[in-house]
Amino acid sequence: MEAFEIQYRVSYSDTDQMGFMHHSNYLKCYETARWELFRHLGIPYATMEGEGYILPVTEATLRYLRPLKYDRKVVVVTRLKAVSGARITFACQMKGEDGEIFNEAVVKVGCVMKTTGRASLLPEKVRAVLSGLL
Amino acid sequence: MEAFEIQYRVSYSDTDQMGFMHHSNYLKCYETARWELFRHLGIPYATMEGEGYILPVTEATLRYLRPLKYDRKVVVVTRLKAVSGARITFACQMKGEDGEIFNEAVVKVGCVMKTTGRASLLPEKVRAVLSGLL
Amino acid sequence: MEAFEIQYRVSYSDTDQMGFMHHSNYLKCYETARWELFRHLGIPYATMEGEGYILPVTEATLRYLRPLKYDRKVVVVTRLKAVSGARITFACQMKGEDGEIFNEAVVKVGCVMKTTGRASLLPEKVRAVLSGLL
Amino acid sequence: MEAFEIQYRVSYSDTDQMGFMHHSNYLKCYETARWELFRHLGIPYATMEGEGYILPVTEATLRYLRPLKYDRKVVVVTRLKAVSGARITFACQMKGEDGEIFNEAVVKVGCVMKTTGRASLLPEKVRAVLSGLL
Repeated sequence: MEAFEIQYRVSYSDTDQMGFMHHSNYLKCYETARWELFRHLGIPYATMEGEGYILPVTEATLRYLRPLKYDRKVVVVTRLKAVSGARITFACQMKGEDGEIFNEAVVKVGCVMKTTGRASLLPEKVRAVLSGLL
Repeated sequence: MEAFEIQYRVSYSDTDQMGFMHHSNYLKCYETARWELFRHLGIPYATMEGEGYILPVTEATLRYLRPLKYDRKVVVVTRLKAVSGARITFACQMKGEDGEIFNEAVVKVGCVMKTTGRASLLPEKVRAVLSGLL
Repeated sequence: MEAFEIQYRVSYSDTDQMGFMHHSNYLKCYETARWELFRHLGIPYATMEGEGYILPVTEATLRYLRPLKYDRKVVVVTRLKAVSGARITFACQMKGEDGEIFNEAVVKVGCVMKTTGRASLLPEKVRAVLSGLL
Repeated sequence: MEAFEIQYRVSYSDTDQMGFMHHSNYLKCYETARWELFRHLGIPYATMEGEGYILPVTEATLRYLRPLKYDRKVVVVTRLKAVSGARITFACQMKGEDGEIFNEAVVKVGCVMKTTGRASLLPEKVRAVLSGLL
């Protein structure tokens, strides 16, 4: 799939005393970006939760290539990499305006029924939309 | 009531690029401290939620008196100030080992039924325990 | 001064297990909003820090009027209330699209020299710009 | 090296609306745990920063095996895996009281001079202490 992009500006509360965006905060940006992708695709995550499905993260791998500083504007890039019955894999990047990569990550989520806490197939509509992109 | 105290050490992720604990993080410490007080009193907050009650914050007033730096050990002091039918008021402090006050706050919470989202009287047991302290 | 407004959408990581935006996260939104106001006024906060001044929060009072849920779009409203030699007071709101108020707050910041940690008059330019708005 | 362990209890602000510890917060626990290990070894991280060195995270890989819920007590386990001239690798776990693993991770940090932002060999003392453990 083509890259889906949102803008992000590093906020003051993102920083730590090194003067860099704290390394835990990248996961928050990637999360926001992937649910914006879902909204863009007509399958809002809030609707999925309303229908009883949650998509907790099962794996994440992050590489911090350059420090990201307060007030810096970046593009958060999300690409769908794989969809199986119950899992979705995303490739993510934080990219500067000149194309430099600050961070790259692979994030996997798994579909779970909220009430039972058990793994579940993705809702048919979600699977259809995502599969159509690959 | 006498002061209830827990120890806290400022973590790296608490700091911002000023080199101080970010001003939003005090509220997290005070929250942890008040539910430790509840546990100490035999009315664990997790149990209250299990029984259908939540205690969201309705008001908070904070005064930041001295900056709190990474790795600093402080005492988080919690005092019960008032209990009414549906509301509880706490007075909170972050205190150094030499008694210097870094932050002081008043935090009010209100009792709400989780399923309906409507205000509720505090569970009888909780009210009895807290009232006994005043 | 007239109200300065930015858009905000509650992210998943803003929520807690009540299903509401955690009460500590409002302070982060208000911080981002006030530095966006400063940027809009031609006195970016990042520049101030570059010139050796920091503006830590000295007081904050928040009233949580309605719970704010995941994915909700709100307007963060910032108004300059007062400027003295070394202090600035902001009045802040989180407002829904129908005008309902979710949260309102007063936040005070004080000017400090980064290297010495001592209180300082606001830089002349900053004081002039802000005073012109009152 | 033998495992170094600290206790942790999931706080309310750690949770998200799934009712689980938000996946970004594990990195904060692992950070706190590794600097507690450093303190235990006589090489406090705060001292390193005071001497001009920072240790930003360069890579992190996390596997979320079971959801961690509010108020749960866990042990954060840290093991030193490798030390090279400028890099340190840690293996981390969040473990329940019955030995069940909630999360496991590998976190790599790199040594950087704070003033220049350039990679640096680890301070001699730090390297000696860490190498002695392997």
